[in-house]
Amino acid sequence: MNIDRKVSVAIIGAGTAGLYATPDVRDATEGDFLLIEAGNYGTTCARTGGMPSKALVRFAEQAQSITELRAFQTGKVSNAQIDQAAILRHIRKLRDRFVARVVNSMKRIPANNRMQGFATFVEPNILKVRNKLIQADKIILATGSSPVIPEGWEKFSDRILTTDTLFEQKDLPPAITVIGLSGIGLELGQALQRLGIEISGFDFQKKIAGLQDPVVNKTAIHLLHQEMPLWLGRAVRVKEDGRQLRVFSGDNSELSDKLLITLGRRPNLKGLGLERFISQTDARGIPSFDRTTMQIADYPIFLAGDIDGESTLFHEACDEGRIAAYNSCYEKQAFQRKQPFHITFTDPNIVQIGKNWHEIKGDPNITIAELNFQLQNRAVMMGEDHGILRLYADKTTHKLVGAAMIAPRGEHLGHLLAWSIEQGQTVGDLLKMPFYHPGIEEGLQTTLYQLYARMRDRNDKKPPELHVI
Amino acid sequence: MNIDRKVSVAIIGAGTAGLYATPDVRDATEGDFLLIEAGNYGTTCARTGGMPSKALVRFAEQAQSITELRAFQTGKVSNAQIDQAAILRHIRKLRDRFVARVVNSMKRIPANNRMQGFATFVEPNILKVRNKLIQADKIILATGSSPVIPEGWEKFSDRILTTDTLFEQKDLPPAITVIGLSGIGLELGQALQRLGIEISGFDFQKKIAGLQDPVVNKTAIHLLHQEMPLWLGRAVRVKEDGRQLRVFSGDNSELSDKLLITLGRRPNLKGLGLERFISQTDARGIPSFDRTTMQIADYPIFLAGDIDGESTLFHEACDEGRIAAYNSCYEKQAFQRKQPFHITFTDPNIVQIGKNWHEIKGDPNITIAELNFQLQNRAVMMGEDHGILRLYADKTTHKLVGAAMIAPRGEHLGHLLAWSIEQGQTVGDLLKMPFYHPGIEEGLQTTLYQLYARMRDRNDKKPPELHVI
Repeated sequence: MNIDRKVSVAIIGAGTAGLYATPDVRDATEGDFLLIEAGNYGTTCARTGGMPSKALVRFAEQAQSITELRAFQTGKVSNAQIDQAAILRHIRKLRDRFVARVVNSMKRIPANNRMQGFATFVEPNILKVRNKLIQADKIILATGSSPVIPEGWEKFSDRILTTDTLFEQKDLPPAITVIGLSGIGLELGQALQRLGIEISGFDFQKKIAGLQDPVVNKTAIHLLHQEMPLWLGRAVRVKEDGRQLRVFSGDNSELSDKLLITLGRRPNLKGLGLERFISQTDARGIPSFDRTTMQIADYPIFLAGDIDGESTLFHEACDEGRIAAYNSCYEKQAFQRKQPFHITFTDPNIVQIGKNWHEIKGDPNITIAELNFQLQNRAVMMGEDHGILRLYADKTTHKLVGAAMIAPRGEHLGHLLAWSIEQGQTVGDLLKMPFYHPGIEEGLQTTLYQLYARMRDRNDKKPPELHVI
Repeated sequence: MNIDRKVSVAIIGAGTAGLYATPDVRDATEGDFLLIEAGNYGTTCARTGGMPSKALVRFAEQAQSITELRAFQTGKVSNAQIDQAAILRHIRKLRDRFVARVVNSMKRIPANNRMQGFATFVEPNILKVRNKLIQADKIILATGSSPVIPEGWEKFSDRILTTDTLFEQKDLPPAITVIGLSGIGLELGQALQRLGIEISGFDFQKKIAGLQDPVVNKTAIHLLHQEMPLWLGRAVRVKEDGRQLRVFSGDNSELSDKLLITLGRRPNLKGLGLERFISQTDARGIPSFDRTTMQIADYPIFLAGDIDGESTLFHEACDEGRIAAYNSCYEKQAFQRKQPFHITFTDPNIVQIGKNWHEIKGDPNITIAELNFQLQNRAVMMGEDHGILRLYADKTTHKLVGAAMIAPRGEHLGHLLAWSIEQGQTVGDLLKMPFYHPGIEEGLQTTLYQLYARMRDRNDKKPPELHVI
């Protein structure tokens, strides 16, 4: 083979994971690397994922404030006619700023280290890009993922929206059905409903936002169902109905103008040609790899980001980019991965951290405490007294091991809990922390006290909130 | 002397500190205690402090949402005519629920352990209450504090509001001047302004919200001044002006109908008679005491809560109640007090944690990093891209030692930082924690990276975000 170019490391994909790998690879290889991108520059997150959806959620919260003040201040506050098209324009403008930042950061990578084109594996360390053969000692594969559209639904494609296309719309129709409620679909659905679109939600699963904990799942369904119909636990079918689409869940159905399909994302493996030499894969075709090193078996190939099919979380993609970068440049090193931590930005937020329900249920060492936010002072004062927090702790180690919640300011409670679990803090350690009054964090304190009462040494009379000197 | 009753422990004051001391004292003394309260039951916090102000802040945020949506959605969203009287009624209703809870919890204390009346010290362990002499082995003094009104201003008393009276008003006048901007005055002022009252703010100090850090103070003044005039750094004078009051700061003045005076709270020492036997006090007459034991010298008297003149913070009052309870029942034990942690619930929140500017300035071991929230992705997406975060770290220990900020969701960033400082986490430890995307917490991460760059070992090529296995 005529090799056109040799480099120490090739990075395929300039998304979040690839871009987080790049600086470390550049430094370690002293510039002997190549970053290959098949599409336009700009990460999934900035273009279509978390960022624009958070802007939509913000406007939805403002619209909700008007609804709440109207209910409270009869006759004093007028109903708002939200201009969805203006909101979409504004979000695109913000989005373009973020994408421009990514594109600008790309420009700082020397042109000689960048290449545009679709990469195909010829051999484990040889890539073909636009008829050029690139040989690399190590290859970081970070091609990302794409929204899943069920087979057979192509015929509705002119009326299908995904996170790739939603924010490109000039305007939105009066009614949208969201199919897939495991995360972003739920938060977008609730936000669009609050902005005046008639939303219904469907999922074949009985849980929403990926909630394993049955108590939190039940509360979450109850709360969100008050704002929009949710049809769960049955296969979802779609039929033409006049000029609209009718979506079925068993015998129940909703009529709408468009479908927002949020059934998850599929790793972009197609066309890479990995199957030529890698046979050990999971059912989805993802090669077996070690998540502490990101290496595929003994191949000189490292996965990073959505391509590995594990999660589509930004902070995990960053970690994977860095692990792949390190292991493609230095002697192999295993790294400890972070505890699971997932937020859905509904109102209230839905959060899962650490061990989930299926990992702890039936374990005699685990004790569970819960808080109903109807009784939480700050939540009541804010008029956000809805939701539930469940904490899982280990009675033998006294450590907090997991949490699930639908809670006001849940994203922030989530960080406190994720950090605490990551650090291996015990329930007693955490009670010694300050809980500012009147704060949502006091709800966490109340729940920790419940756990502590089941663990404390009855002979110790010292206040658990303080360290002795 | 004819002692009418003897108990192991007497607790003077059924506010936050006294009520937090009570259960521990009850258990330790097996019921041989007396809780003495001079006024009505119900804590300062529930009646007049943090709780009702947070409800006011909530309505102010909703009103602000309308203003923001109006600016953005021209012609689609109408101006709101906020009904302040209805809001005050609602807050009183919520407040009464909280006070009722406190009063109910009082009822669970046996009548024989409660006494109503003003307590005066006859001797260090003898109290006179309604002509009865009570002898106690140990006494917990938790009489709280009252709003300060400057001398000579009594003549305006019909037009003076304090946090004790604000929420009792049937309605509010068109214009109010807030005098004292060190905390609750600032948050109430901003909230009332957003609810349609014309507010001006005065303070003789040049700093607001107690901010020691000059950079954060300057930013905070700049941001809050956009909503209401703030006159700082000069003595404040008040004069009659027609049917209104004119408040002066040097040559500048503002006209208003009422004054909201928030110049801090004075410990309720008057009439206790401590001066009969205690001579060692500070300038305010507060007896010298050990904050790790809460004991006054070798007297059998322990302070708890606002009476000690240290802070008026709820979580500190709780800790002090517990320390006083322990030390009035068991062998003396010193407890480690928490790091300073103070939040002002303005929008954005103002927060100070750990070592303050005056403690670290000029220290060659301290390095400071800062983040401007105009550049923070989530803040931009939420339209809350205002504020600044400053972190102080020790270059020798690599530990985070303090923080000051005016920041969106500052109360929650504050908890993460207060816990981290309390735990003695290093900058490197914290970079290994998850920062969810897109979150305000990523602003903290950005700032930690700045600090880390000044501390890292250049020979260590491993990614700082991950633990090796």
